[in-house]
Formats: sequence, structure tokens, C-alpha cells
Amino acid sequence: MRQSVRRWHDARVVATRTDELVTPALLVDADAFDQNISLMATALPGPRLRPHVKAHKSTALAKRQLAAGHHAFTCATIREVEGMAAAGLGEDILLANEVLDASRLGKLDARVTVAVDSLQTIEAAAKGGVKEVLIDVNVGLPRCGCTPDNAGTLAKIARSKGLEVRGVMGYEGHAVGLEDRSLRQGLTAEAMALLLQAHADVGGEVISAGGTGTFDINTWANEIQAGSYALMDTHYAKLGLPFKQALSVLATVISTSASGYAVANCGLKALGMDHGNPDVEGGGIVMIVSDEHITFAPEKPVTVGDRVRFIPAHVDPTVAYHDRMHVVRDGEVLDTWEVDLRGW
Amino acid sequence: MRQSVRRWHDARVVATRTDELVTPALLVDADAFDQNISLMATALPGPRLRPHVKAHKSTALAKRQLAAGHHAFTCATIREVEGMAAAGLGEDILLANEVLDASRLGKLDARVTVAVDSLQTIEAAAKGGVKEVLIDVNVGLPRCGCTPDNAGTLAKIARSKGLEVRGVMGYEGHAVGLEDRSLRQGLTAEAMALLLQAHADVGGEVISAGGTGTFDINTWANEIQAGSYALMDTHYAKLGLPFKQALSVLATVISTSASGYAVANCGLKALGMDHGNPDVEGGGIVMIVSDEHITFAPEKPVTVGDRVRFIPAHVDPTVAYHDRMHVVRDGEVLDTWEVDLRGW
Repeated sequence: MRQSVRRWHDARVVATRTDELVTPALLVDADAFDQNISLMATALPGPRLRPHVKAHKSTALAKRQLAAGHHAFTCATIREVEGMAAAGLGEDILLANEVLDASRLGKLDARVTVAVDSLQTIEAAAKGGVKEVLIDVNVGLPRCGCTPDNAGTLAKIARSKGLEVRGVMGYEGHAVGLEDRSLRQGLTAEAMALLLQAHADVGGEVISAGGTGTFDINTWANEIQAGSYALMDTHYAKLGLPFKQALSVLATVISTSASGYAVANCGLKALGMDHGNPDVEGGGIVMIVSDEHITFAPEKPVTVGDRVRFIPAHVDPTVAYHDRMHVVRDGEVLDTWEVDLRGW
Repeated sequence: MRQSVRRWHDARVVATRTDELVTPALLVDADAFDQNISLMATALPGPRLRPHVKAHKSTALAKRQLAAGHHAFTCATIREVEGMAAAGLGEDILLANEVLDASRLGKLDARVTVAVDSLQTIEAAAKGGVKEVLIDVNVGLPRCGCTPDNAGTLAKIARSKGLEVRGVMGYEGHAVGLEDRSLRQGLTAEAMALLLQAHADVGGEVISAGGTGTFDINTWANEIQAGSYALMDTHYAKLGLPFKQALSVLATVISTSASGYAVANCGLKALGMDHGNPDVEGGGIVMIVSDEHITFAPEKPVTVGDRVRFIPAHVDPTVAYHDRMHVVRDGEVLDTWEVDLRGW
């Protein structure tokens, strides 16, 4: 991890110490990140993990996952696929999402597989010049995916249009975030029974599923689409997983009050808020989050000019607000990764 | 508003019809926007409104506010001030926020006034080369601002450092969003009594306060910092204000279910979620919002490939996720505005 410091061509963010960073700034703890990558590569080596880039939206971070042995990636948007292909990470990309216009995918110099769950999405894949698909199966999460019973029929239709059907995917998203491990296990088992039933009708070598919360539970799928494990958040922390919190938002205390609260300069435009307020690193209570402020009651007194870190409740929509992440250790900025896969 | 179509130098977003836009896409209803700008310019003409750019983060939109007669602007971040100055909108910019490093502000070719509420922020302004300040007074919202009693002392300190003290600001943020108008009025009156008390000690010509929710209630401040009025959101819609909903997120239905729900391709990375789920334009219930999906029960049946619009609950953190907004009327894209003031 420790390597020559790469500097941005942007005067505002040139810094070799976290103290010098313009705040708010997204930080990645180098040691926690390294441990997460290493632990996952041991648990799910090589192709057993198909890292989901939606959690970090950074080709620089994806290259660390590649270096750890994972050559196949998962994306959620066409833009993510394009960016990964442009960065030379296009050996085997799965767009684990339905699209109605696949023409941008068909043009890429990369191996692109797209999820399909309807006649319309199959036709869009074929028309757009995509060569390979997975049949997306609904295994319990009310979102995309055909019924398990319909998977075989869709596979036949896809093949009749000249598409290679590589297998199935089915995301147990209703299970991955549950704190109760036995419930998570039970729901995953039920979900994967549906996926295997569909796979029997569809064929192909790929059974793709899973996420960070089921990385060591889902033994039915032959590839796991985990993404959050690399950076983590307070929501996944509640599950007692072995991954460490690597992501934080660095902010500056800009105001304090005699009554004990303090105000830091990061807010709703630096934090995904769908899972609730962030945690204060080192303890304290977040009182209000507004556009560019957090009002919080710190556990230990702080003064104006102090720097504090907040731990986001949800990694994906937090990272998507930032241009870059700074990889840090002991107050030193080791590297800066562009968040280059944002937008659509 | 209707004018020659400006095209982006980006193949992905060249479109003259909303049907052709890559989704998710941020839309601005041209007629609603025009009415909002016009209505506010009539209610608070010229310098009575100091539009807050944090709500839209777009110099293109700010230029419409300038054209409506408002020459002085409010910003929440240094990056916003820099961008406004670079776009030629720097006649009188207030950074209504505390900063500990004002050096980037001091370098700008613009009239920049910064809020101060402590010795440290006064010293930072002086050191950074900023010439003018407002004393930021806490008028009831637990956020930045000195106590009203302390405002006069801080003004003296600021003047002793060579800073021009233009007056006071005090944001009644605890009142602006309340649906009960009489409560909003009462709290605003109390807050402004505190601000006027501070102003008596501070002096200067500026008494800056207010927001969209108090634009016609706050008659004590001599300039109002409203921003949301231009685009609006479902939260402010509940207040019965005369402004129309101009902002929506256009999405494509990518999957449907026999049980009646549908899935559209916009999610947590296209919508600020701190105020809750978006509304479905035309009716329906949002069931789940995930990173790149909304699962919703539409009021009228939809099919794969249909386009739907979602109305964000909170405008500011929604716009901050997007690169651009498309100004539309009758399905035609009239203009595309860059969201160019993001980041810090």
C-alpha cells in the first residue's frame, strides 16, 4: 500500500498530510482497506468473487481488487461498465442490471454480460450488440428479475436471438443486510433454492448472487457480487462481519457552542443518508445533518479548527457524492483515488 | 425561456427530446421554473433577495436569477464562491458559512463577504485576505452563529483586524420548514428579534436571513437567502407556498412484476434521501429505493420501457448528485445546465 505519493493536478487537493486536505474529504484507512481486500481474497479467491464496483465507483480501487486476484467485476450502470472497460478492467464485466438501450455496451472493447429478465431487455441486448447475458431471477427481493418458473423460457428466447446465455443471477438483497445471522442464512438458503431451480432450466456455467452480508453464507452461488466489504459502513458493521471500517468523511469543526454542541463542515452533500445519520469517530451524538453542516455533541470537547471524522451509514451513496478518496495512514496521504465511475 | 437548443459536447446526453435522454436525468420544467423566478422577483425584487445557490449549484441557473434582477448571491461553500466568481457572478457574494482557511476566497476577483462567529473565523478571514464580513448570529437553530449578546464584541474584534463589518446574518432554519404557517411566523418573529438586537450592537447596512419557507414572513431582514423556491421539492410543497414543482428525476421502467409493482432505473445516487422517499409523478407508492433502482406501485399500469418521473423530497442533495439539469417543455429539451458548483 505504501507507495510514492500521487498528486492531483488540482491545487485544492494537493496534500501529503490529512491536516492539509480541504474538508470535507473522503478518507480510506489504508490498513483497514488492505485487510478487507486480503481477507476477502482468502475467503473467496479469484473468480469466486466478482467485486461490485457500485460501492466505490473507482477504477483505482478496482485495480486493487484485480491485484488481489479478482478479474471479473460487477457493475450497476452502463457508465460503470464504460469506465471499467476504458481503464483496462474489461476482461469479464457483468452489468447486473436491466437496460433498454444496450448500444453503448455493444461498442465496448470488453467482455460484457448483461442481466435480462424480460422479452424487452433480451431484445435490447441483442439489438445493442451485446453477446452474452445472464437470466436475472427474482429470488425474494421485490426488484428486478423474472419468476424462477419463467427463467428457462427466457433463456430459450435469448438463445433464439443469438445471445449466449452464461447462466443465472439472483440477488438475495432482502437477506444481506439482516443483523440476525440465522435469519440471513435461512432466507439465503430459500433464495438460492429458487435460483438453482431456475439454473436447472437455464443452464450455463454462472450462478451469480450474494453480497457482503452473505459472502460466507451463500455457498450455492459460484460467484459472489460483494462490494461494500472493501470500505464498509455503519450499517454493515452491525452484522459482525470480519471487515473493518475503512471509509470516513474528514471534516473541520467550524463553530462551537457554550451548551456543548459543535458544528462540522460536512453534511447532506457529503453523506448518503438513506440509512440514517453517520457516527462520530471517537464517540458523540449527531444531532442535525444539514446541507453543509453536522451539528453534533462530541464525547470529548472540541475546539474550532479541530478535525473530526464521521463514519457513513451507507457507503455507496456516500462515495457517489465525492470526486476522490484519499488513502491515509498515520495522518499521511499515501494515494488519491479518483471516483471516476459516477453518473450514467 | 424558449431559446436555441444548446448541446453538450458529450454524445451520451445530446438530445432534443426528453425521450432521447439517458436516464436517470434531472429535469427542470421550464414553465414552473419561469413562474417561480418571476413570482419571487415580484415579491422580493432586486437586492431584497440574495438567492442561495446551494439549492441548485448551477451558474447557468444563477444567471436566470441575475436576469430577474438579483445581483447579490449566497453560497454555502468556498467552491460555490469560486465558481460564481469565475462565471462573472461575483458582484456581491456572501459565503453564509464559517471557514477556517479563507485564502482561496481572498484571491478571487469578486466582492466576497464571509460569515464569522468566533475569534478563529475572524482571524481566518483577515489572514485569508477577505475584506468584508457579516457577524453570524444564532437565532434558534442549533448550528453556527454566536450568541446575540456576543455579536457586538465580535464586530469590534473584526473591525480591529481591519475587516469591514457589513452587518449581521441569522438563519431561522428551525422555522423555515414548518408546515404550520402561524408557528413559522411566531418562531421567525422571535428569531428576528434576536437578530435585530444583535444588529443594534453590530451596525452595518445588512440584515440577512430567511429561506424559501419564510420568504413572505420575514419582514425584519432586509435581504432573504432563499434558494429552494426556484426548483422546489415535496417537503417545501407541504407548506402551501406559491412556488411550483419544477424539478424531477426522469427514469425508465426496466422491469415489471405480475404482482403489480414496477422497477425504474433511478435510486439513491440520483436522489437526496434525508427527507425520505420521492413521490411518483402521476401517482403511486414508492416501496424501496436502492442504489440504482426504485421499486414502486404505479397508480396506472406501466410497461417496460415507459418513462416515469419522480419528485425529490429534498432539492439540494438531489441536484448535488447530478452533472447537469435539462430544461424541458412539452417533451422538448430547451436547454441543458451544468451543475458546476459541486464539491468543495
